[in-house]
Amino acid sequence: MYKGTGASAGIGIGRAVIVEEKELVIKRETVTDPAAEIQRFKGALEVSMKQTEALAEDLGKRVGEKEAEILKGHIMLLSDPMLVGEIETNIQNECMNAEYAIESVCTMYADMFASMGDELMQQRATDMRDIKTRMQKVLLGVASVDIAALPAGSVIVAKDLTPSMTAGINPANVTGIITELGGRTSHSAILARALEIPAVVALGGILEQVKDGDMAVLDGTEGTVLINPDDAVLAEYQNKRDAFLKEKKDLEQYIGKPSVTKDGVSVELVGNIGKPEDVDKVLQYDGEGVGLFRTEFLFMDRDSMPTEEEQFEAYRKVAVALDGKPVIIRTLDIGGDKEIPYMGLEKDENPFLGYRAVRFCLDRKDDVYRPQLRALLRASAYGNIKIMVPLVTCIEEYRQVKALVHEIMAELDREGIAYNKNIQLGIMVETAAASLIADIFAKEVDFFSIGTNDLTQYTMSVDRGNDKVSYLYSTFNPAVLRSIKRIITCAREAGIMVGMCGEAASDPMMLPLLLAFGLNEFSMSPSAILRARKMVTQYDTRELQAVADKAMSFATTAEVENYMREFINQ
Amino acid sequence: MYKGTGASAGIGIGRAVIVEEKELVIKRETVTDPAAEIQRFKGALEVSMKQTEALAEDLGKRVGEKEAEILKGHIMLLSDPMLVGEIETNIQNECMNAEYAIESVCTMYADMFASMGDELMQQRATDMRDIKTRMQKVLLGVASVDIAALPAGSVIVAKDLTPSMTAGINPANVTGIITELGGRTSHSAILARALEIPAVVALGGILEQVKDGDMAVLDGTEGTVLINPDDAVLAEYQNKRDAFLKEKKDLEQYIGKPSVTKDGVSVELVGNIGKPEDVDKVLQYDGEGVGLFRTEFLFMDRDSMPTEEEQFEAYRKVAVALDGKPVIIRTLDIGGDKEIPYMGLEKDENPFLGYRAVRFCLDRKDDVYRPQLRALLRASAYGNIKIMVPLVTCIEEYRQVKALVHEIMAELDREGIAYNKNIQLGIMVETAAASLIADIFAKEVDFFSIGTNDLTQYTMSVDRGNDKVSYLYSTFNPAVLRSIKRIITCAREAGIMVGMCGEAASDPMMLPLLLAFGLNEFSMSPSAILRARKMVTQYDTRELQAVADKAMSFATTAEVENYMREFINQ
Repeated sequence: MYKGTGASAGIGIGRAVIVEEKELVIKRETVTDPAAEIQRFKGALEVSMKQTEALAEDLGKRVGEKEAEILKGHIMLLSDPMLVGEIETNIQNECMNAEYAIESVCTMYADMFASMGDELMQQRATDMRDIKTRMQKVLLGVASVDIAALPAGSVIVAKDLTPSMTAGINPANVTGIITELGGRTSHSAILARALEIPAVVALGGILEQVKDGDMAVLDGTEGTVLINPDDAVLAEYQNKRDAFLKEKKDLEQYIGKPSVTKDGVSVELVGNIGKPEDVDKVLQYDGEGVGLFRTEFLFMDRDSMPTEEEQFEAYRKVAVALDGKPVIIRTLDIGGDKEIPYMGLEKDENPFLGYRAVRFCLDRKDDVYRPQLRALLRASAYGNIKIMVPLVTCIEEYRQVKALVHEIMAELDREGIAYNKNIQLGIMVETAAASLIADIFAKEVDFFSIGTNDLTQYTMSVDRGNDKVSYLYSTFNPAVLRSIKRIITCAREAGIMVGMCGEAASDPMMLPLLLAFGLNEFSMSPSAILRARKMVTQYDTRELQAVADKAMSFATTAEVENYMREFINQ
Repeated sequence: MYKGTGASAGIGIGRAVIVEEKELVIKRETVTDPAAEIQRFKGALEVSMKQTEALAEDLGKRVGEKEAEILKGHIMLLSDPMLVGEIETNIQNECMNAEYAIESVCTMYADMFASMGDELMQQRATDMRDIKTRMQKVLLGVASVDIAALPAGSVIVAKDLTPSMTAGINPANVTGIITELGGRTSHSAILARALEIPAVVALGGILEQVKDGDMAVLDGTEGTVLINPDDAVLAEYQNKRDAFLKEKKDLEQYIGKPSVTKDGVSVELVGNIGKPEDVDKVLQYDGEGVGLFRTEFLFMDRDSMPTEEEQFEAYRKVAVALDGKPVIIRTLDIGGDKEIPYMGLEKDENPFLGYRAVRFCLDRKDDVYRPQLRALLRASAYGNIKIMVPLVTCIEEYRQVKALVHEIMAELDREGIAYNKNIQLGIMVETAAASLIADIFAKEVDFFSIGTNDLTQYTMSVDRGNDKVSYLYSTFNPAVLRSIKRIITCAREAGIMVGMCGEAASDPMMLPLLLAFGLNEFSMSPSAILRARKMVTQYDTRELQAVADKAMSFATTAEVENYMREFINQ
């Protein structure tokens, strides 16, 4: 069994098809008529754009507008005057052939992006190589691998899939994707999830282990791959696949059903989103709102601060799309571990204990926080927006934000601009300090949302990104569980709403405990909502009290986890 | 009023004496007889060593052996074969004059040390420059500034004081020291404290504000400096000085007195130490033991791991010196923010949330933890040693350490080596996790010691070394106070000893609260012990309950601090 990264859930079983792009051989040649060569390049550029537009249009129809965006990004790259200009200059000044000019300029940019180290830039490097190959193929008259023509029951095995290649996949015929490169958030992985094709990525060396026609089995949830398993194992995976598909089908019956426990306790099952477009998924899976809208995307991957107007548009779009359902928008949560060059943030010695989130925003009221809060207030006229403040550790921080919000409200009143005068202002409870004085906060704030990822990290004094200590990181640690219970209890006693927007909210082992503690709102990845609803409807919170009491009686994480695992599997 | 860093407590009042080392002009010259020049260098080296030895001896007699160590470090540098060899090679190969060869080699090393960024290396850079100047002066026949001859009532004002210069100071004549450079832990600051001369360091630009003969007033506690104050202010500081000296004198009466409150509650007032020699100060100030012996010094500033034997000697020395009084020794507390090259530690992205302390030790049992625990157990035969484990977050970690201790005990039994079979094994409570499950820990461990510095840092999610967020760092934050109270309560309910070894233990505003909560042991800088004893004897813990209840009722740090400030000043 080979272990990679699960990138798209489900079981894929089929015959391996090795998809290898032929290596293009690009030689430098001297052209005698650079002007004519530039025309040749321009022709190829036009064809490439048309091909990409056609692919994008097809993908938009078959899969979704959001997925087509990736290819639209390629069209933008192809239209970039700097890129085009540099290629033309190389042809003109160096009497270079178009293929080689494209090779050198695109490779230079791709290498530059790749060297920047973050995932977004890695993706840009892949995109740049993708358009390079496309243009060169047009120039050389080389046909692309025709992925659309693969026979039914194919499992694609490739070094990497470019978005162009992935977009051509026919999900009726491709039952799985395995790649040596990529990650959970690479564009190909995103497309695989959108196409609902099981995928395992980042499985280095797999091409050496498999040949065309081998029986390939992959588990896109676990990230595992088997090649030519024996009949018993194959049958086991066939059962697993059938169970997965059946569960998926079964869950559809929960669309439109209320999220109510057997004993009549209503909770809200809502989605975490990172971009306005993600709302589609929330609605598709019948989410009852948005429990966490991360606003960082608006600030990243650009050269300057987004304007109040740009932010307003993004927030308004989400509020309108949710049509009255609650949308909790978290104010900017960045710090010294993310590179946003125009913010002028220096790298902190301990970024997670440093100058970030509300600390940064309150220090940069005029250019950062005020425009964001103003945009949020203006957008609140168009739907049920709630504002959430991250990384709060003391009540003074919350009071400062509240004062600023009231200042902006007065400003909007003077300007005659509409906003929701009763807008709710809440906090992420994600630090040990906020948990310890949750009762004090509960008297002043409108709602809590427990951020279990950071709460666990800070409670355990563990950077979960650090492999050497991540073994200590668990939401089932008794200290973390006590903290969660305490936060929920304080909120319930004060009569305010308390939600959870960390990964634990959709964990089947955690959910019964959260129901027992009295959590009101569970915010999760949209695709997890229906399964959570199914679980909610199967529990009786009165019966869960004894389970929670037992779980809270253990001294170690392992005991809690074992107990809860047994409980949900009984 | 100018504000620097208080480096040695007390009020200094006197006439400013600007102490400036004449800038030596070192030019490169070509020598015709390099062999003779090498002899000239060797002669200067010998004189420099003799001068330094004489200074060290004098300082050892006048002040203490520990203080003389700094100058002995200079002698070691002067005897370093690599340094001497490189200077000689430069003279030989480049026909360079000795002054210039010293300049280039010593400056190269000093710059290298300075660029390493940590305080210890900064100090080495200063030491390297100090010996450079000493040798060059000998070669050039330039006399050193004769600090020993300053008139009575002098306040030294200097860019920086080298240890050589500070060592020459006669405390009868020098009433204060002000420097533009340096820090609380620079060698000059350490010497100033040993000489009990008030000092303010790191006061950039002060040389431009003061001239010889000006009336200079400094407060080494507050870190403030006044130049030519008016008579009223001067009188005020004279009163302050008298009060400081009187208090110091008064405190001596508490030597030999019990640390008991008015209502008969006994506590232990003990010292924090970093090296075996620090025990002298603990005994001088009548400490009732050592509450925290940091063992890092044994591992730092060297090229290889200390052997079990070296560690055993250090621990035994302290145990013997304390003669039956308790000595709590903390096992190695290092991590990815300290450079110990031979440990092979990589720099963590978030060192304070990373691979450090017990996490590191349990991962490196064979080469790191086992030898240390074995040395501690062996030393336990010679006094009242207790072992303390830092940065514990879950009970499994403690159980692992305990199992290892028992393994080593069995080993020692087999080898017939003596140790204290009833040695106590306790934990630092310094993470939010440990505080939240303090009741679970209290059932298994022998004692607690609350590390307020880290506890505050982790509770508030604040790196206190980060200037941009350190405003959030306060032990008086209601969340931190609740955590402290909870830890003490859990220990008392389980009947185990609970101490505190963070800076808060000697804070006059915190001490009444700690007495009210029921803290057993207060561990602090040895020089703070007598003042703490005076405070303890003046309180009635029954009366303090109402004060603590009131303090715990506030929502903000500022309210708690104001209330406690008023309380102690009433």
